[in-house]
Amino acid sequence: MTNSFRFTGVLTPVVMPFDEDLAPDTDRLIAQCKWLLSQNVNIAVFGTNSEANSLSVDEKIDLLDALIDSEIDPKTLMPGTGLCALPDTIRLTRHVARRDCGGALMLPPFYYKGVSDEGLFRAFSEVIERVGDSRLRVYLYHIPPVAQVGLSLALVERLVSRYPGTVVGIKDSSGDWQNTSALIRAEMDDFQVLTGTESNLLDSMRLGAAGCISATANINPAAIHNLYTNWQAETAEEMQRALAEFRDFIQSFPVIPALKATVSRYRGDDEWRRLRPPLVELDEESCNRLYSELDKRHFAMPGIAQAA
Amino acid sequence: MTNSFRFTGVLTPVVMPFDEDLAPDTDRLIAQCKWLLSQNVNIAVFGTNSEANSLSVDEKIDLLDALIDSEIDPKTLMPGTGLCALPDTIRLTRHVARRDCGGALMLPPFYYKGVSDEGLFRAFSEVIERVGDSRLRVYLYHIPPVAQVGLSLALVERLVSRYPGTVVGIKDSSGDWQNTSALIRAEMDDFQVLTGTESNLLDSMRLGAAGCISATANINPAAIHNLYTNWQAETAEEMQRALAEFRDFIQSFPVIPALKATVSRYRGDDEWRRLRPPLVELDEESCNRLYSELDKRHFAMPGIAQAA
Repeated sequence: MTNSFRFTGVLTPVVMPFDEDLAPDTDRLIAQCKWLLSQNVNIAVFGTNSEANSLSVDEKIDLLDALIDSEIDPKTLMPGTGLCALPDTIRLTRHVARRDCGGALMLPPFYYKGVSDEGLFRAFSEVIERVGDSRLRVYLYHIPPVAQVGLSLALVERLVSRYPGTVVGIKDSSGDWQNTSALIRAEMDDFQVLTGTESNLLDSMRLGAAGCISATANINPAAIHNLYTNWQAETAEEMQRALAEFRDFIQSFPVIPALKATVSRYRGDDEWRRLRPPLVELDEESCNRLYSELDKRHFAMPGIAQAA
Repeated sequence: MTNSFRFTGVLTPVVMPFDEDLAPDTDRLIAQCKWLLSQNVNIAVFGTNSEANSLSVDEKIDLLDALIDSEIDPKTLMPGTGLCALPDTIRLTRHVARRDCGGALMLPPFYYKGVSDEGLFRAFSEVIERVGDSRLRVYLYHIPPVAQVGLSLALVERLVSRYPGTVVGIKDSSGDWQNTSALIRAEMDDFQVLTGTESNLLDSMRLGAAGCISATANINPAAIHNLYTNWQAETAEEMQRALAEFRDFIQSFPVIPALKATVSRYRGDDEWRRLRPPLVELDEESCNRLYSELDKRHFAMPGIAQAA
């Protein structure tokens, strides 16, 4: 079996619901994923904004199985699989390949800082070779503001060249347009660049990006997908400005708590506000400010209250 | 059962041997720990310099059991247990308490950056309460240069005050003397400050520290223990200068590879040079420079070649 599928368009690192015991809430996650898919957004389940690094490998395997067993097409899923410890990354990535997911979003091991490109090459290489599954498609995950361990263009090129058809893309969450544009302009064969924000989606599409993986797409999926689809339209600049403004607004809060508070409100479901430590929910004042600003913008999440 | 034991003196985050398949080498680890104990150094197994964050929880549990089954006194062991994901930290910490180890060295969850003291308090609190074992003794692990998530003095005081007799110490690897001295001067009840380096051991002992947890103690244990024991002797300043100079020399290399290369040489065992990605062994030129400098210093690791 091989995997000729490639992600394009909009994905979101789906926020993770927790029950009162702080365990992942499978049913709420499935409902949220199905709503996002109805909005034409695919699912980077276990991304940074999913609090994925606060979940164990066992929890992630169980959640992934539950999503697929709920008849979500595994090709719509790009689970995050890159962890600090080689055996953990191998175990989770192997499961993602076996379940025939569209791809695996792979952080570098992120505890040790100042590591060499050679060391990172070996880390990715050990995972790919030990998983040894032709269905595996790796999307590298470059997010130096959080991971503090980044992926140089030279390293990316070396991995793509050594594992053609397996290392097939990157999510660039550097927030550095020079880096994003250099990745796109490198025009690596069979390699997709997905930006980590919709705030530069139009410029990225014009250069040849494949789309974006956006935290804000958790709550604003239709508008982002609309720009992706219509980036060549006359109204594209205007759509881009509106998306960037909305994202700036969300980023004026702690992002993950703000996304969860928003989902909570439009679902009418307080359970959604909960986070796992070390993250904490929005304080009341911030939450009130968020909700009142959303009202002023006539913000809506169509169909979400009806989604099972 | 309670745990009235407190660590004082010198500990080392023991370096981790790997076999040719990159699996932890249990027998070599046991031999190295026994040699270190013979040099009056206790074992912070699964510290930063143990490449602990490149090991899975299962691997750590198996190694800990093997160490204790080899008749190493669990009271000499302070395993690192702080991981990104709450269930992982709970599982490993619970095992460490059940095996009645002298303590657990606990990193904060370190993936998410810029987290609040409240979030970190909740993270430690959930672990301590869910482990729920009176044998547990927590030594907080403050190493912002690597973890990039630090522990403020206010947070430390809040944890000690909320969990007296459970949160009983800290390893301060900030490299910031202002922070180390403030922690010691805070004179928290039943709370030990262990510095993360022997380079300030004398000043720390004069202020009231309990000792140090030092990477270099992997290879230089006797000299460090000597200053710990004789910090009030006339020769203490001279001993301190020699220790600091030696540590600076080791830190002129990538530290973990240099420690492993040194152990490898004095054991006459090339297997010890291996690291798990993303870390890589010393290149040949650096290794030659290390060995030739060690010769000039008449460096020795007494008894190590004989240690089984």
